[in-house]
Amino acid sequence: MVKLAIIYYSATGTNYQMAKWAEEAGKEAGAEVKVRKVQELAPKEAIESNPAWKKNVEETKDVPVASSDDVEWADAILFSTATRFGGYASQMKQFLDTQGGLWAKGALVNKTVSAMSSAQNEHGGQEASILSFYTSLMHWGAIIIPPGYSDPVLFTTGGNPYGASATVDQDGNFTKDIQPAVSVQTKRLIEITKKIIAK
Amino acid sequence: MVKLAIIYYSATGTNYQMAKWAEEAGKEAGAEVKVRKVQELAPKEAIESNPAWKKNVEETKDVPVASSDDVEWADAILFSTATRFGGYASQMKQFLDTQGGLWAKGALVNKTVSAMSSAQNEHGGQEASILSFYTSLMHWGAIIIPPGYSDPVLFTTGGNPYGASATVDQDGNFTKDIQPAVSVQTKRLIEITKKIIAK
Amino acid sequence: MVKLAIIYYSATGTNYQMAKWAEEAGKEAGAEVKVRKVQELAPKEAIESNPAWKKNVEETKDVPVASSDDVEWADAILFSTATRFGGYASQMKQFLDTQGGLWAKGALVNKTVSAMSSAQNEHGGQEASILSFYTSLMHWGAIIIPPGYSDPVLFTTGGNPYGASATVDQDGNFTKDIQPAVSVQTKRLIEITKKIIAK
Amino acid sequence: MVKLAIIYYSATGTNYQMAKWAEEAGKEAGAEVKVRKVQELAPKEAIESNPAWKKNVEETKDVPVASSDDVEWADAILFSTATRFGGYASQMKQFLDTQGGLWAKGALVNKTVSAMSSAQNEHGGQEASILSFYTSLMHWGAIIIPPGYSDPVLFTTGGNPYGASATVDQDGNFTKDIQPAVSVQTKRLIEITKKIIAK
Repeated sequence: MVKLAIIYYSATGTNYQMAKWAEEAGKEAGAEVKVRKVQELAPKEAIESNPAWKKNVEETKDVPVASSDDVEWADAILFSTATRFGGYASQMKQFLDTQGGLWAKGALVNKTVSAMSSAQNEHGGQEASILSFYTSLMHWGAIIIPPGYSDPVLFTTGGNPYGASATVDQDGNFTKDIQPAVSVQTKRLIEITKKIIAK
Repeated sequence: MVKLAIIYYSATGTNYQMAKWAEEAGKEAGAEVKVRKVQELAPKEAIESNPAWKKNVEETKDVPVASSDDVEWADAILFSTATRFGGYASQMKQFLDTQGGLWAKGALVNKTVSAMSSAQNEHGGQEASILSFYTSLMHWGAIIIPPGYSDPVLFTTGGNPYGASATVDQDGNFTKDIQPAVSVQTKRLIEITKKIIAK
Repeated sequence: MVKLAIIYYSATGTNYQMAKWAEEAGKEAGAEVKVRKVQELAPKEAIESNPAWKKNVEETKDVPVASSDDVEWADAILFSTATRFGGYASQMKQFLDTQGGLWAKGALVNKTVSAMSSAQNEHGGQEASILSFYTSLMHWGAIIIPPGYSDPVLFTTGGNPYGASATVDQDGNFTKDIQPAVSVQTKRLIEITKKIIAK
Repeated sequence: MVKLAIIYYSATGTNYQMAKWAEEAGKEAGAEVKVRKVQELAPKEAIESNPAWKKNVEETKDVPVASSDDVEWADAILFSTATRFGGYASQMKQFLDTQGGLWAKGALVNKTVSAMSSAQNEHGGQEASILSFYTSLMHWGAIIIPPGYSDPVLFTTGGNPYGASATVDQDGNFTKDIQPAVSVQTKRLIEITKKIIAK
């Protein structure tokens, strides 16, 4: 049984929603799934001053915070984060950077990984953010499993070959239904991981 | 007077259209403008078998082919190309790669540059292609002038901060009016170049 | 038995040497190996005017030219190319770009891939070139298998986690022995591919 | 007079040293220079447990922490950071991400920027980290001024066209004298900025 960790950062809920869709797909594909949020770095005042952010923090207060144990436990990891200036968010960067202990003992090698992103503009860094994930994960010795155009449904969800990516409007609504893309990507990650971990 | 070379590769006409919009904007901004297509690499049969490609080749037969002289002449260069698997097209790569002579004599240093792209999927490599241009142009010693979010109109044209990018449907139609983005990017390139070349 | 295609572009012999090292490692790991050079795009005069280039073309005249059949045949593909302005060489770009036929019928999905590069400066695009390969191959739906730091020997060969990379001096000599890095990367590609293609 | 902010993150001193070399070069070129470190995110215990890190924190305790005011003040910004898994360090990412206020009011547009990096392996992300900076800074609307091969001395310092980059051994010693590269890059940034801000 594939162990899948879905590790996300979400300020106002978009990537949390994507993580939930991935969780559903992961379970359908027969994986054991953990959903984890990374530690917030923003000060309380920043969060309090933004109603959507505050609401999401409250709604996800029971989601466990991601730890090195989760990374070590997982066979496969699906990352999801909002874009921040064309890279994955600093909260996520902080999480990845602090896995040096696992790295030093070789515990990150052969993890299978895939990544998703979101932005407020259609071309606001969705591609670049996912690519920045993969560059980092290559340092881990991870095996990168992007969706490509491996399923026809991907042509209807924005066609991002690097990973599912959402565009959200000013009110935080998805401009397109990307759940099918999240699902295809997650299931593909599980299927290939199954083969890699088979005895 | 800024000398602007617009160097493009276009199979079925999208990037030729973008080059024309840029030419118009460049002239409005007071630049001396040359529009150049890069040498085609595809065999005649490939072109003949695709009506849209054939039509565009015929319509643009009088556009001069880009040469090293054009690069050397220019103060500013705006590149435009269709995405091919997340990079700029091989026809364009061939053109850039063969500027080694200019590179060796330092003639590429301080060129100001900007780039545009197009793809058939919304997230089909528009960002990645433009970024791949800039990586190459950094080897030239070029000064990179992407649009960022320097003008509010960019929020209505897809919001690609690296450069104007088009999504075209199966019939080759633009899914969005990106002419304002092309115009803003071109004029910004001219304005900053003006300052850099001023005595 | 894993079918491994090693597809390279080499002007003056560096990447041909790397391909040969990879071939040796691939065979040791029990793969069926094909070594293929991509079609040259440079005019005859350019090659004739550079003795090292001319010599390499002559020495490798019996290496078959890579075709779509080789790509379709392969389970795993290892790419190797000199850097050209921070991207993989235009000859290689032309080869990749022209695999659109295989792409359209889904024949590129799940290929396992890895890439290597070389440059004349220590930081002359070795990293960027390999990353540009992976961006393109994500469009194929490929599974990316970079070496990371999966073996201690990689710390002695320059430690490029994206792929083995060579620095060559003005006379075309490797400044460092990177054969161990090529070997580790190739064998890792084979081992993981074995699992993925297992029934 | 060009206002230059040098904003760095340094755990064990490498990038602090590079910042100091840049400061010297900036002053020689006639700029008004501020050197700023970004806020540390690591817990005290992590720092205390690493003698080199602790020593550097103590030695740089009087360097002011970078703020949005410094960014707004500057005409030109030179960034320097250690590589963390092929990207700029999370401390720096946190700093950049939190400039959203300046971004929203358009105060980041037309900043001229350049970046430097360091790693423990020769090809351990030096290129990728600098490129990740530039991707982010394109979102700012910045003008990117990498060194390219604009000066012959760059061929002796590793030849990184994206920015000066250091390789440091296990004891934190530079494996190569890169001060000339830092100097060339800084002076070039100043010279071009001078023209851009001229009335």
